[in-house]
Amino acid sequence: MMHCDQLTQRARIRDGHGDKMSPEWKAKIVTLKPREPRSDGRHPARMSGDDLNPAAVAQPVEDAQGDDRWMSQHTRFVQECKDAEPDVLFVGDSMVQLMQQFEVWRELFSPLHALNFGIAGDTTCNVLWRLQNGELENICPKVVVLWVGTNNHEHTAEQVAGGILAIAQLLTSRLPKAKIVVLGLLPRGERPNPLREKNTAVNGYLRSWLPRLGRAQLLDVSGDFVHSDGAISLQDMFDFLHLTPTGYRTMAKPLSDLLLQILEETPEERQVSPV
Amino acid sequence: MMHCDQLTQRARIRDGHGDKMSPEWKAKIVTLKPREPRSDGRHPARMSGDDLNPAAVAQPVEDAQGDDRWMSQHTRFVQECKDAEPDVLFVGDSMVQLMQQFEVWRELFSPLHALNFGIAGDTTCNVLWRLQNGELENICPKVVVLWVGTNNHEHTAEQVAGGILAIAQLLTSRLPKAKIVVLGLLPRGERPNPLREKNTAVNGYLRSWLPRLGRAQLLDVSGDFVHSDGAISLQDMFDFLHLTPTGYRTMAKPLSDLLLQILEETPEERQVSPV
Repeated sequence: MMHCDQLTQRARIRDGHGDKMSPEWKAKIVTLKPREPRSDGRHPARMSGDDLNPAAVAQPVEDAQGDDRWMSQHTRFVQECKDAEPDVLFVGDSMVQLMQQFEVWRELFSPLHALNFGIAGDTTCNVLWRLQNGELENICPKVVVLWVGTNNHEHTAEQVAGGILAIAQLLTSRLPKAKIVVLGLLPRGERPNPLREKNTAVNGYLRSWLPRLGRAQLLDVSGDFVHSDGAISLQDMFDFLHLTPTGYRTMAKPLSDLLLQILEETPEERQVSPV
Repeated sequence: MMHCDQLTQRARIRDGHGDKMSPEWKAKIVTLKPREPRSDGRHPARMSGDDLNPAAVAQPVEDAQGDDRWMSQHTRFVQECKDAEPDVLFVGDSMVQLMQQFEVWRELFSPLHALNFGIAGDTTCNVLWRLQNGELENICPKVVVLWVGTNNHEHTAEQVAGGILAIAQLLTSRLPKAKIVVLGLLPRGERPNPLREKNTAVNGYLRSWLPRLGRAQLLDVSGDFVHSDGAISLQDMFDFLHLTPTGYRTMAKPLSDLLLQILEETPEERQVSPV
């Protein structure tokens, strides 16, 4: 089994990715080691300095409710990494997680050998922690689909985009041959509201920043969900946030087309692994 | 169109429901008028006296995130009451809400003329507020399916059961001919944990209390989801809480059977309304 960690060093030396970035660019990303939560329970982002993006701080979800579900799910994902050899890895929050419950997953994404590492409620911080703590071990996907950020309520649009960028950078570093598809944040709320504006701003930052990572690109289908009167339909989002099966169809088709195109562009990978 | 509010007074006089209960029983239920949130933002439950069950205090969800989704959904439900004449009303949290996204809803419940008033994250307090603020206006369902309580993290099992009872009592009072089916809380978490024990205790209280309401009964399918080793399967609950399509099948069959039985037992209602 290939271990992408071992490939990372070679790729860094060959591609020299780390040297392409300007200092202010590095400051935006702020790749950080996982940090332990403070004993007083405060989020470490609260005590961050000016140069620290709190949305790029790896952070597990505290088991406030008492059934340990978040860690159970993470542990399952780590276990899946040992058992499966995915070509496509989906990572993110409930938008990713719920997709697997609908027919569109079985029809369009399962056939691509896809794993789904979505956990409802996750922020960029939580996804960063998961990826730094086992969810990239033992697997070597050709594409990673990243969809997270709409739950980062404590962070500004620029910070959220920086957090997404930090995850994308971690992915390109740990999976030196993988392509990264970042899904743009969708509008939310029945009518125009500040969170919609924020998500639009996040997409704007990503559109300008992601191409500089080289192997990452944005797929933004957010425009397909707002009607001419500014309203979002219950037919697309059953609670004005989460997608219905119809809503998933709308975003899944362009995503599936893009994934197929990317997978076809890496034929040498397929020849290498006869499995 | 029938207005069940107008029937309530007559039914109270005829049935004398309010006089059947002992004082300590009344204390458990604590039927309360909707209360305005305090201006300092504190939950009114926090300042309650000993005789007040905080899980039976009607309370809207504050729009902490800024997209007003909770109120948008409530407003839609109130609007649906003006347009539809449901025979079955589902009310509750995400367990109710997500059901509508799956085939099982179209197959088993839509044909019964069912409305779905589920909102993810709702507690007994939130459901109580919604029902007291328009979600029972202009409709006269023959059965109400109530499924809520697993999100009441600040309340004890006895308080949660009391909150559910308060909702059931409101329903029997406002819908004097309707039957109430309360769904037992499901186990949660991959392995045995305090929240499972709490939900089991809630079901125990409901089993002993609900029959005294006369037209309310408990349907408890929680035993179907725990394997012999104490584990819950991802095949049933994709995040060890929310049901997969397979999990919904398991609980939907006995529920559908019960609803059909109840609807068949009220033939005179059907003859009255030729629509």
